[in-house]
Parts: sequence; C-alpha cells; structure tokens
Amino acid sequence: MSHVGKKRKVDRSGQDRLYFDSYTDVTIHEEMIADHVRTNTYRMAILRNSELIRGKVVLDVGAGTGVLSMFCVQAGANIVQQNNMEDRIEVIRGTVETVDLPEQVEVIVSEWMGYALLHESMLNSVLFARDKWLKPGGLILPNKAELYISPISDPVVEDRLQFWYTVKDRYGVDMSGMYGFARKCIMNSDIAMNSVHVEDVLSHPARFAELDLNTVSVDELRSLKGKFKCESFGSAAVNAFCVHFTVTFPCPDKPLVLSTSPFKPETHWKQAVLYLDDAVEVVQDTAVSGEVCMYPSEDSGRHICIHVDYTIGEEKRQSKSFSIPDWSSEGHTQ
Amino acid sequence: MSHVGKKRKVDRSGQDRLYFDSYTDVTIHEEMIADHVRTNTYRMAILRNSELIRGKVVLDVGAGTGVLSMFCVQAGANIVQQNNMEDRIEVIRGTVETVDLPEQVEVIVSEWMGYALLHESMLNSVLFARDKWLKPGGLILPNKAELYISPISDPVVEDRLQFWYTVKDRYGVDMSGMYGFARKCIMNSDIAMNSVHVEDVLSHPARFAELDLNTVSVDELRSLKGKFKCESFGSAAVNAFCVHFTVTFPCPDKPLVLSTSPFKPETHWKQAVLYLDDAVEVVQDTAVSGEVCMYPSEDSGRHICIHVDYTIGEEKRQSKSFSIPDWSSEGHTQ
Repeated sequence: MSHVGKKRKVDRSGQDRLYFDSYTDVTIHEEMIADHVRTNTYRMAILRNSELIRGKVVLDVGAGTGVLSMFCVQAGANIVQQNNMEDRIEVIRGTVETVDLPEQVEVIVSEWMGYALLHESMLNSVLFARDKWLKPGGLILPNKAELYISPISDPVVEDRLQFWYTVKDRYGVDMSGMYGFARKCIMNSDIAMNSVHVEDVLSHPARFAELDLNTVSVDELRSLKGKFKCESFGSAAVNAFCVHFTVTFPCPDKPLVLSTSPFKPETHWKQAVLYLDDAVEVVQDTAVSGEVCMYPSEDSGRHICIHVDYTIGEEKRQSKSFSIPDWSSEGHTQ
Repeated sequence: MSHVGKKRKVDRSGQDRLYFDSYTDVTIHEEMIADHVRTNTYRMAILRNSELIRGKVVLDVGAGTGVLSMFCVQAGANIVQQNNMEDRIEVIRGTVETVDLPEQVEVIVSEWMGYALLHESMLNSVLFARDKWLKPGGLILPNKAELYISPISDPVVEDRLQFWYTVKDRYGVDMSGMYGFARKCIMNSDIAMNSVHVEDVLSHPARFAELDLNTVSVDELRSLKGKFKCESFGSAAVNAFCVHFTVTFPCPDKPLVLSTSPFKPETHWKQAVLYLDDAVEVVQDTAVSGEVCMYPSEDSGRHICIHVDYTIGEEKRQSKSFSIPDWSSEGHTQ
C-alpha cells in the first residue's frame, strides 16, 4: 500500500481563494519562467512591439513575478521593485475586477492561458480589463488564440492494459480479469495533461476554434463550439484525441506564434489528452470528424470541460464529455 | 499560467471514505503489483512458509486485488473468484474492525506499509485483526518493521534555488530577489516522496525504530520515538534527511527483508525526504545525531508527521516538524 485519500469538492466561495493560493508557491513560477518557449516568445513579442509600447501605459494582468512587466519596461513602457525599474512599474494588488487604476491604458499584456487554453478561466479577467481599462484601439498581447484537435494512438494506454495479462508470467497468478476494470479506469473522462509524442499523432491537427481577443466576449466563452475534420496518416488504433492551442502576437514584420502543438518544442502546458472508451482502427485517409464544445464546469467555474462528438471512418457517431480532475496540477515533487 | 486551485481540509468523518476511495482506481493496484521488489518479496516469503500455511486459515487484511491471498493458496492455504481458487478463498467485504469472521485464523498476511512506513495508518487495522482474530502463536507476515534515517545532499534543491540567479542570463531580467522566497517554498515542512540517489546519501542509514508486529500496540504507534547517530562519508552540504523502512518476513532458513533503502532497488515507496531550512556543511566523519518522533497528524489520523531534533557536527541542536501534504499521492498521469 502507499496512497492517501484525495480531497473532493469545495464550496464555490472558496474557489477563488484556492485558485490564487495555488500561485503562492515558487514552483509554479519557476515552471513558467523556466518554460523558455513561453517566456521567450512573450519577450520577443514585447520587444518587437517597442514602437507601440515606448512611453505608453501597459497593464500586466496577473503579473505574478512581474517578468512580463519587466520585458515591457525593456521595451520602453511606463509600467517591479527590482532591476532599477521602481519608477516605471506600479504594482497594484487586488483582482482586476475590483481594483481602481489611476488611468486608462494603451497596452494590455497577459499570460492567461491554462491547460487546454481555457482552464482557470483567467481569460475572463483579461476581457474584463480590456472592456474597462483599455483605450479604444489599444494593443492586447497576445491578440488571438486558436484551438486544435487531432486523433492520437497512445501506446502507454495499451501497455497499461496489457499489463494485467503479464501478471501470470511474473507471479504465476492470472489477473487478466482486471482488464475491463483497468480499461474503465484508464479510458476515463478525465482530461489528462500529457506530453504527446509526435509519432503518436495520427493526422494534421484540425483547428476547431479561433478567438479574436479584441472582440470576443465573456459570454462566448461559456460555450465555445467548433467542427473539425482530419484524415489519418496511416494505419493505427485511435484511442484518444489531443487538444492543443496557439496564441498569436501581432508584430510589425510578421505575427509571432506561441504554439503548444505536439509537433513543436514542449511547453509546460503539454497537451490535453481525451481518452475514448474504446480504441478504433483506422487506415490511411480514414476521415475523423466531429464537433468540440468547451465550457466551464458547473461545480467550479475555473475548471474546463470538453465535450466531443466524433465519427471515425464508417463507425457510428459517438460522444464523450471530459473534465479536469482535482489533482491535475500534480504534486510538486522535486 | 497553467495551474488549478487545490482542495484543502476535509472533515474527519469523510477521511476513511476518502482513504478507501483512493484504492478504487486501477492505477494504485497496477503500481503495487508492478513493483516487483514488493510483490516478489511477499510471494517468496509466503511460498517459503508453505509448511506453516498449508491447510491453514489465512487472513489477508486489505486484500485489494487479492494477489497475496492467491500466493497463500499457492502455498496451500485455505483462503478470489478466478484462478480456480473459488473454493479456497472467501472474500469478506467490510472493515476488519467491523466484520465477523467465521473462525479464528492461523496466519495473517498484509501489505499495510505506507509512505514513511506509517502513512495511511493501516497498521492499526492489522494490529486490531491480530488481537481479535489471530490464534495464539499464529504467524504474521511480515512480523518486523524497522525505520532508518540518513543525512543527504539533494542537488535538485540547489539547482532549483540557483535557477533564480540564471534568469538574468536567460531573459535580461534580474530575478535573484526570488531566492529567499524560493528557499522558503522548497525547503518547506512537507514530507517529499522522492527517489534518493545513492550518491546523494552521506552516511550509512541509522536505525531509529523497530516494531515487533507480534507485540506492538496501537498505542505505541501514537508516538514512535528513537535516537540516531551517523557519521558523514565525506565533505558535502547536508540539506535534508532521508527516511526509509524495511519489513522482515520470518522464513524457515533465514528471514526475508523487503527494503526501501536508497541503496537497494527502487520500490514504489521511494524514500521520504525531509528538507532542512538551511544546508549545513559536513566533512568526513562529522557526526550527525538526534531523535526522530513519528505521530499521526491531528487533522487527519491517517496522515503521518515526523519531528526531527538533530545536531550536525559542532552546530547547535535544531528541530523541525514535517507532514505529508494533500497532494502527495501525485496525479495519476499516464
């Protein structure tokens, strides 16, 4: 044995406190700053926009350690305590929904993206700040977000299921009867945050949603829907979908894209993996199509749910709903 | 960003339910059975005791998948549904504290060990079963448990702390001011479950407690105390203690030991790591001594706490209390 009971449910009023508490440990900040794809893309995007940022008032929503604010100061903005930037950065404590800023701002920069893009629902706060504090025509960094889906064949699942057939050879005890239970537990409705290997992705990722952050409303985030269609690269057993996102920064020359695609260098967001109840065999060019709907959990508005209707080849249409389990932020083991 | 608020506290009445719920997923059973050090040692211990088990009534406390029961049947016992063992295994559902067995038993077998040996407090149930159901002179497998401590130098901690000095080179922003905060967060009072590398262990592990499972009482587990003394192998900076345990099975020829020592092959228990507030430099033969006390958490009786009083070399005596955080069972990522 070696396990410990997990805590469930918490009242709605405590959710914001728990959410903000989760950022009081250094580990999450270390992970974010050590994610050089994330941090470097923000840095480059900010520096390349220095024409628009120089001398302007920039709002950094959910500043954390303040690293993005400091990039903005490097780009010439009037925006932490250190780096001899005291006179150009003002730290305002409080939620953006309740604080009173001294003036309207010309630029909003924020790193609000959660697992599967919308987990944490922090985008809502950015949109609130945009509507209340951003001057007309002001700049939002990033200003676009896109969501993609692709069928995958996760070999770990197959290995884990086959494990129960190997127990007899290991210990002389037939445990193949555990297979069905193991399949139910492993192919469950949790959104898993895994690093998907390129070779397990079975098609080009298909875009199913695009958000223009200059115009999207909080209301639209309550149910974000989109269709997708892709075609299998070759023969395999589809046992999951992989959801990833990109955000795009406008830049003078060409836009900069921060991508969490399994085809790109890994980020701390990894990919969101949705396991089907059963694996489905596909061959080259088998069509995989359907519709994805993302919406906040009824139990906790900061937790994202994903519903997928899908058709694989000639199989009948199926659907499954997924949500992020409580433990998804992982133990911060060292 | 990418994180999710953690749930805290749960009322005492719900703790047993949560504890048993944590075993309703296949992952924990897979992890335990795939731990071949654990499972093979139990199998060998049971088979080598077949003289004492043949024809006898064996009680498997916390049977889980029933794998230990099946080993007992292989050893000739009268004890799950499959393996053509139906007529020799009786599955009794309910806590051992409340069930009514049809008869007294001659053997108790149980795999009750949690992180740091006593986490989960499942040993209490085994002792209850011993006192109520084991015939005088009956066999308990295992029948002895020992706890060890050793000073270690964990390089990951140093790397994580130094990280904040590297941010300037990475992104042109000085974040060395985060060092103190990072040290507080990382050198905290959580019991971390890590795989300690042999080369990071600074002395022979010192035994600080031994439990004879034939005689130990539940009362003694409420505060398990013991002194230790060890001498450093060489020069290093001690920044943590490592606690591990062994359990011993009596066998006709010689006892079989299941060890979770960092010097032995890894098990799913890994080691319990206790971080000091500050690293302390030692040289060869520097004495490290003190006293360890293990006791159940006041908030949750199934959670273990560890208090260590220690003296390193000529430094003054220090003390620190540790507990297992809620998230220590880790997300069951695939």
